[in-house]
Amino acid sequence: MAHQIKKIGVLTGGGDCPGLNAVIRAVTRNAILNYGYEVIGYRFGYRGLYKNETMPLTLETVSGIQHKGGTILYSSNKDNLFDYTVEENGIEVKRDVSDVAIENMRKEGVDALIVIGGDGTLTSARDFGRKGVKVIGVPKTIDNDLASTDFTFGFNTAVGVATEALDRLHTTAESHHRIMILEVMGRNAGWIALESGVSGSADVILIPEIEFDINKIVEKIEQREREGKLFSIIVVAEGAKPVGGDVVVSKIVTDSPDPIRLGGIGNKLAYDLEGLVENHEIRCTVLGHIQRGGITSSFDRMLSTRYGVAAVDLIDAGKFGNMVCLTGNKISYAHLENVIGDTKNVNPNGELVKVARAIGISFGD
Amino acid sequence: MAHQIKKIGVLTGGGDCPGLNAVIRAVTRNAILNYGYEVIGYRFGYRGLYKNETMPLTLETVSGIQHKGGTILYSSNKDNLFDYTVEENGIEVKRDVSDVAIENMRKEGVDALIVIGGDGTLTSARDFGRKGVKVIGVPKTIDNDLASTDFTFGFNTAVGVATEALDRLHTTAESHHRIMILEVMGRNAGWIALESGVSGSADVILIPEIEFDINKIVEKIEQREREGKLFSIIVVAEGAKPVGGDVVVSKIVTDSPDPIRLGGIGNKLAYDLEGLVENHEIRCTVLGHIQRGGITSSFDRMLSTRYGVAAVDLIDAGKFGNMVCLTGNKISYAHLENVIGDTKNVNPNGELVKVARAIGISFGD
Amino acid sequence: MAHQIKKIGVLTGGGDCPGLNAVIRAVTRNAILNYGYEVIGYRFGYRGLYKNETMPLTLETVSGIQHKGGTILYSSNKDNLFDYTVEENGIEVKRDVSDVAIENMRKEGVDALIVIGGDGTLTSARDFGRKGVKVIGVPKTIDNDLASTDFTFGFNTAVGVATEALDRLHTTAESHHRIMILEVMGRNAGWIALESGVSGSADVILIPEIEFDINKIVEKIEQREREGKLFSIIVVAEGAKPVGGDVVVSKIVTDSPDPIRLGGIGNKLAYDLEGLVENHEIRCTVLGHIQRGGITSSFDRMLSTRYGVAAVDLIDAGKFGNMVCLTGNKISYAHLENVIGDTKNVNPNGELVKVARAIGISFGD
Amino acid sequence: MAHQIKKIGVLTGGGDCPGLNAVIRAVTRNAILNYGYEVIGYRFGYRGLYKNETMPLTLETVSGIQHKGGTILYSSNKDNLFDYTVEENGIEVKRDVSDVAIENMRKEGVDALIVIGGDGTLTSARDFGRKGVKVIGVPKTIDNDLASTDFTFGFNTAVGVATEALDRLHTTAESHHRIMILEVMGRNAGWIALESGVSGSADVILIPEIEFDINKIVEKIEQREREGKLFSIIVVAEGAKPVGGDVVVSKIVTDSPDPIRLGGIGNKLAYDLEGLVENHEIRCTVLGHIQRGGITSSFDRMLSTRYGVAAVDLIDAGKFGNMVCLTGNKISYAHLENVIGDTKNVNPNGELVKVARAIGISFGD
Repeated sequence: MAHQIKKIGVLTGGGDCPGLNAVIRAVTRNAILNYGYEVIGYRFGYRGLYKNETMPLTLETVSGIQHKGGTILYSSNKDNLFDYTVEENGIEVKRDVSDVAIENMRKEGVDALIVIGGDGTLTSARDFGRKGVKVIGVPKTIDNDLASTDFTFGFNTAVGVATEALDRLHTTAESHHRIMILEVMGRNAGWIALESGVSGSADVILIPEIEFDINKIVEKIEQREREGKLFSIIVVAEGAKPVGGDVVVSKIVTDSPDPIRLGGIGNKLAYDLEGLVENHEIRCTVLGHIQRGGITSSFDRMLSTRYGVAAVDLIDAGKFGNMVCLTGNKISYAHLENVIGDTKNVNPNGELVKVARAIGISFGD
Repeated sequence: MAHQIKKIGVLTGGGDCPGLNAVIRAVTRNAILNYGYEVIGYRFGYRGLYKNETMPLTLETVSGIQHKGGTILYSSNKDNLFDYTVEENGIEVKRDVSDVAIENMRKEGVDALIVIGGDGTLTSARDFGRKGVKVIGVPKTIDNDLASTDFTFGFNTAVGVATEALDRLHTTAESHHRIMILEVMGRNAGWIALESGVSGSADVILIPEIEFDINKIVEKIEQREREGKLFSIIVVAEGAKPVGGDVVVSKIVTDSPDPIRLGGIGNKLAYDLEGLVENHEIRCTVLGHIQRGGITSSFDRMLSTRYGVAAVDLIDAGKFGNMVCLTGNKISYAHLENVIGDTKNVNPNGELVKVARAIGISFGD
Repeated sequence: MAHQIKKIGVLTGGGDCPGLNAVIRAVTRNAILNYGYEVIGYRFGYRGLYKNETMPLTLETVSGIQHKGGTILYSSNKDNLFDYTVEENGIEVKRDVSDVAIENMRKEGVDALIVIGGDGTLTSARDFGRKGVKVIGVPKTIDNDLASTDFTFGFNTAVGVATEALDRLHTTAESHHRIMILEVMGRNAGWIALESGVSGSADVILIPEIEFDINKIVEKIEQREREGKLFSIIVVAEGAKPVGGDVVVSKIVTDSPDPIRLGGIGNKLAYDLEGLVENHEIRCTVLGHIQRGGITSSFDRMLSTRYGVAAVDLIDAGKFGNMVCLTGNKISYAHLENVIGDTKNVNPNGELVKVARAIGISFGD
Repeated sequence: MAHQIKKIGVLTGGGDCPGLNAVIRAVTRNAILNYGYEVIGYRFGYRGLYKNETMPLTLETVSGIQHKGGTILYSSNKDNLFDYTVEENGIEVKRDVSDVAIENMRKEGVDALIVIGGDGTLTSARDFGRKGVKVIGVPKTIDNDLASTDFTFGFNTAVGVATEALDRLHTTAESHHRIMILEVMGRNAGWIALESGVSGSADVILIPEIEFDINKIVEKIEQREREGKLFSIIVVAEGAKPVGGDVVVSKIVTDSPDPIRLGGIGNKLAYDLEGLVENHEIRCTVLGHIQRGGITSSFDRMLSTRYGVAAVDLIDAGKFGNMVCLTGNKISYAHLENVIGDTKNVNPNGELVKVARAIGISFGD
């Protein structure tokens, strides 16, 4: 091995996602069992790299974690060491502290770094790569919205949770002739809404990629009534918005005596529909963080194990600066320089949307 | 059989609840197989009794429904035939239309009526009983807040769903060092919050029966921090409230340009804590209708089958005016005259609260 | 505290059971947080007591274990220190080594012992009590066959697993018009078969308490055919047996060139039915150890938490020699001298069997 | 539409598989909503085609079936109308009755036929195509062993069930230091064993494609012991076999006074290991039909919906004689003449096996 790798570091950044622990486990086992690397984890994402907060990753410490959601390395959001908030003379200022991190790795004897994270986290990985760090990326986005890989782990688990919620809502909807709205994750991409909507027999799916007209939703509900179906199920991605409208962000009302956090598009839609649909009660459920946690699905455990193994193989092969990815059913890799910012949205004219329309699902357009 | 019962009717009233279909199935099978009764269902609760909307209940129509949430008879909320909204000369007025319902039953040849519902629905059942209708009640409250029976079906399923949600939230909470709040059902009684909180390893449980002091919650979070636990899980019943405060009801903000439905106590609490707790992000999930639907647990299928069988046995025994109930592990019955309005709250000094406190759970008091 | 308890020991004996870890957690937390006891666990049941193999039980070591099946203390079957196999001069002999265990506790400073186990394990607990050890029992039987307590933890989880298996088998049975047999746990008592059979819509339930006649099973299958139901589901407890017949134990065929383990009553029944039933394929599934493990149900987490808390409270109250139990919905206790060997079988004339029969389930009699 | 399709037929053949109902639903909805076809189902696979046993497939009859296992059309195994067993003069003879089926379709006005099934069922579909029937195939194999498509529905659900079983077995294995064997489906291909084994943290995976040496399994168990892991989990596909050995088929022992069905490779392995491994109890669970039924996973619902929609689109496009398939993540199609008999086995040198080995899993070789 020309690269003389003896010790590698691992960190997880951004929101947690089912499968992170399975990646960490596969990285650790492959590194130790097959290459004899020592492995350490940086805790709290890049913050740990900056503060040199580490924990040993051994066969023992990664035992029994494969099916668990979350990350044993902890994570932090929005920590960018190239533009990091530090205190100087009691004042918070932004500084590039990446050299501190690099020096930490050098002192610790870490020869290569595996970074598991989303677009932001991987952007920093690329930037560390530019500065000579031997880095390998592992993509993580529960929304499955990364163009350079066909699937990311966590997505299948999230779709499963959302589908089960739709199964549950069906019985209440039918018993009470209600319109049930389920708001799922998907700020920019509607994959979770689309797949759970098809799987969970939704009648309407609203996604960021297709602006909706509320009157079309009302039409769909009325059409179902004429066919004797006195209830309807709507799945809405948090980033869905009406034609010409804005994304409804969850916000705080502070000008009321009792300031309170407001809901997003799901509750907004429930309110708006109430004035337009007769004879139905309307209820909205926001699925929220339940989509992220718990037991990782077998599909995601498999995929994240493959990613973790491949990331270490790439280190052994000296292919630094790359990110592992899935193309069709094959594990491959792509250079971080080429993948950053390359998001994958639902194609409004693609096969999946056509399939949904073919079985009668409305996109509110 | 002195009562000469030949045909019985069944209706379900109020919110749906896992186990309703299992009751309907057990009623139908016991009535047909053992007593030779004919069985019909009234659709949409009392509305069906008033409008004589019926469907046959046969071995065939109740086949395969035992595990399903919802009710194949549909339900309606707040329909009181003794004070019913009807239109007269284009004006909505309140009338006692119970005689119409009784006449409908007479014409249909329905000799006895099984009413499955909560306190409101059973109050009407009692009133029909007073007017001579041969009525049997089956208690239904997902909140388990009926004093005359130790357990009601649906509760176990709801606790199971809430517990699974807590399991899921744990992984995210731990990975991100967050305070996660889960709002569960329980407007007047905190049973679901209490049992899911103990089962799901919550750190704080807030229930209507124990007013909370937000500073005590902050103390608990800080105490956990000192013990190295950088996250906390809070379960809050929708009816929980601060000391001397009011219940936070979900409401509509109409004085804003963009009127929208506001969240309840869970989101209110998240907002309030944000100002008081440092170093933690706080997130709230409102479980909502997901608690009501889907697959009925085996415990609830068993209990509702026992109720359904017992209800028909009571008809055969001529014990009209009674409601079936569970005392300890024994099926028994109590007269509707004695059970209406008799709710069961969590005892702040009872064993279950003591158990929760004993393992270190705070009630915010 | 007159008893001057400073340190307690805990052990788990016999087969594993969902809820054991929740008991251990509740014991540990109540002991430390409320009474200031030190807590240690003996590993591998009584063997650990004999060999003084211990592990500390602290808030940290019991963290995050509540929902997990199995026991972090490990367990061993059939270890009776009053008649224990030891090696002397290279020969295995039986000895009473209980004094070694008592001396170990004395040296370790363990003032009281909580024993979690079934009838065999608790018999030894009683015997240690007779020798002056301050012992508290916690009942554990996944079969729910202990007379002195209404429910034991683990049972609800096992019934849930069996019920879900029945739900799954239904779809295949119906699609292929098959007779599907599910063999579940229950060597002496048929509770799991009975409750899962009612919950999972079985057509025939076979339990040890009611000897079956295979011709009655055939009659039931044929009756269903006449009603247009071309499939049937049979749940059979491992200890069920034909009238006048013997229990079919799983055994090894050694007189064949290829010695192999044989199945039990489920497969025997499948074989026997094949000669008697036309037009149906017959399949048997033996659920086995899947019933024991995995995620503990919320019901069992609640019950085992209550047991664990109560066991420590009994120590504080000085009520040694007792076993915690559940009477109706109340936690109470009974003296070990009175509960050993007192099993609880399904009453063939009891309410639950009557309920099953009322909805048309056959017991093969 | 040049083909003038007005009415189509659908049948399902072979073993049931999660997703069949979702295909039927998607076919029906796409056909009716977008092309105005009438749709009928043939019941019991090809037998229904021969006997003209049909049922209408309408928006109503396919409502609410998407998530259910099994097939509302029923199925039959091994019915080959080109070599069909009929009775002539009281004697069972084999006849080619395909013309009867074709004539039935003609009389019924069925212009095209969608056949959902495995290799055997699709062989007949091809043969009907050769005789001029406008046929479209939809592949079905829970074992995922069809070369012409990357994934088949049902496989993901089966892997999920097997993985959950492994999760459950882990807790018992660990508590009792046992060797737990799980026998899963896979007579010729080891995909289910491989994917569930990786997902469910198995230590040994035995598949038909890699002959095993029992001494290597013992070595693995002993190696784990040395590392302090006192339990092991083995997943074995039913078609796995020792080096130079034969497949162990489940069989009936008839030369014993008590004839009984014997288990397969799982139990054989348990028996053989017992003589070779000390200090461990060994238990085998045969998962059996539980893998086939119940709730279909969201992945399989999605895939089967895509297949169902595509099958009808192929009819509209006049591309008869083809089978829909999944290539990478794209729906495509292949001619039945080219796909029959083309099975897909686990590649012993492929990526998935390498991944499993990389994390330390033994294949017993």
